Amino acid sequence: MTSEAITVLGLGNLGRALAETFVRGGHSVTVWNRSPAKAAGLAATGATTAAEAVAASELVVVAVLDHQAAQQVLSGVDVRGRALVNLTSGTVDEARELARWASANGAEYLHGAVYAVPQTIGTDASSIIYSGSSAVSERWQKSLELLGKVTFLGEDAGRASGYDVAILSGMYGLIGGFLHAAALARAGGIKATDLTPMLLSWLTDMHPALVTFAEEIDSGNYGGGESSLAMNQSGLATLIRAGQGVPFAALDSLKALVDQQVAEGHGEESLARVVESFGVVSQRLAGRQ
Amino acid sequence: MTSEAITVLGLGNLGRALAETFVRGGHSVTVWNRSPAKAAGLAATGATTAAEAVAASELVVVAVLDHQAAQQVLSGVDVRGRALVNLTSGTVDEARELARWASANGAEYLHGAVYAVPQTIGTDASSIIYSGSSAVSERWQKSLELLGKVTFLGEDAGRASGYDVAILSGMYGLIGGFLHAAALARAGGIKATDLTPMLLSWLTDMHPALVTFAEEIDSGNYGGGESSLAMNQSGLATLIRAGQGVPFAALDSLKALVDQQVAEGHGEESLARVVESFGVVSQRLAGRQ
Repeated sequence: MTSEAITVLGLGNLGRALAETFVRGGHSVTVWNRSPAKAAGLAATGATTAAEAVAASELVVVAVLDHQAAQQVLSGVDVRGRALVNLTSGTVDEARELARWASANGAEYLHGAVYAVPQTIGTDASSIIYSGSSAVSERWQKSLELLGKVTFLGEDAGRASGYDVAILSGMYGLIGGFLHAAALARAGGIKATDLTPMLLSWLTDMHPALVTFAEEIDSGNYGGGESSLAMNQSGLATLIRAGQGVPFAALDSLKALVDQQVAEGHGEESLARVVESFGVVSQRLAGRQ
Repeated sequence: MTSEAITVLGLGNLGRALAETFVRGGHSVTVWNRSPAKAAGLAATGATTAAEAVAASELVVVAVLDHQAAQQVLSGVDVRGRALVNLTSGTVDEARELARWASANGAEYLHGAVYAVPQTIGTDASSIIYSGSSAVSERWQKSLELLGKVTFLGEDAGRASGYDVAILSGMYGLIGGFLHAAALARAGGIKATDLTPMLLSWLTDMHPALVTFAEEIDSGNYGGGESSLAMNQSGLATLIRAGQGVPFAALDSLKALVDQQVAEGHGEESLARVVESFGVVSQRLAGRQ
């Protein structure tokens, strides 16, 4: 084992892209996958067990299907002295659980969330946010930078997943809204490719308003908004009516949150105040458990 | 009446901003509002009735609460020879209905959808899409350009509203997703202002993927996607589970559409294929009517 050796556990599309990028970066790479055939064509050493792969390198990068798969792969493996970098998607609690397990077993743990498709790993279009062991983050900085832009968010191993869950929810809001827009356009005889440039330009124009929303949310001061709850309540009602041939419950869900804020007497305050209703819903659910 | 006179019907925030911008642009402006007090402070002639206001100018710009208000304001008014530019939000059918009414009453009709807040009317940040009478669009181009960037979408008076309904649905997808992301972040102890730069950067990075989705939707060829329905089905399931303390039904609605596509055997095709499920839902609803 040399200190510049890297092991990659999991050879799905992401794992293969990671291994290829490390090889291109001059690392000696050991790989392992549940079905060994996935290692074909990689300029890497294929290990027959996960334990053998982990023994081969100080840095062990995990990219498997989900948290349960990560647990299974690492279960019973000697990880003493290893730097575990887990790029498997999961929840805040799951990342913290693996960090505790690593610590109890003599390993350091860094969790990462990948903003790239496998094809863009190792390019400028790739960005990975990490949290957990700053020692791992510093010791392996150059190797991690091979994969994409590195952002370190602090020592809480769950923090990167906290950002990730939020960012992916925002992303699916954008995607769901876009696909609904395309479906509405098509119903009205408008091509998606005609709509898209105008839509994306307007969405980009909205970004400063979202920055203002963020400031309002952090300060809890919703008083100065240009976009009031009452205005949006009326706008959403018109929109839902206008799009009734191509309904999408996402609009109704958002309107329900707006309605609740207006009913509580906040109609003249900023639309951003809707975050307080997500909280209420969440507390209500918690109260029921 | 001089040909450069302009009448504005409706003095809400938008109507006032329109009137002020026309005044600044050197036009002689006549205004009318249901409650006359709204005209206070405007360098414009206040008319006592809508009919009197319409008589004063060849170009009549309408900016009232909704379609019903626009109908009421214009009802019984002599609009012969007038260029009606209606910037009131509404559906495709409502715009077409007013266009027919205008034509039957000797007026030309142009419908517009405004992408600006009242504060940015008359600045570079304002953009208005129009459809309907190309004669009005050409004759009044310079005056309309005072308000914001002009895009003319053709002779169908409903077309601008068709774009508008789609663009606003896309916008509310973005906003709902953003507010949900902020609520999730807050539940995890992450500030909205810390999340937002990273989130907006990732959303902007998604735009090329949405352009690809638009091409797939128009061509009906969903085969070559990097982002398969099956992958997103699994991603949405993980995300809904991870965010269960702060649920948002918009994610479930999107997942239901993805599930349907996967159940129909399209799991390996592009996520963009979800637009076909919106269509199915729509047809089912139509079948019930």
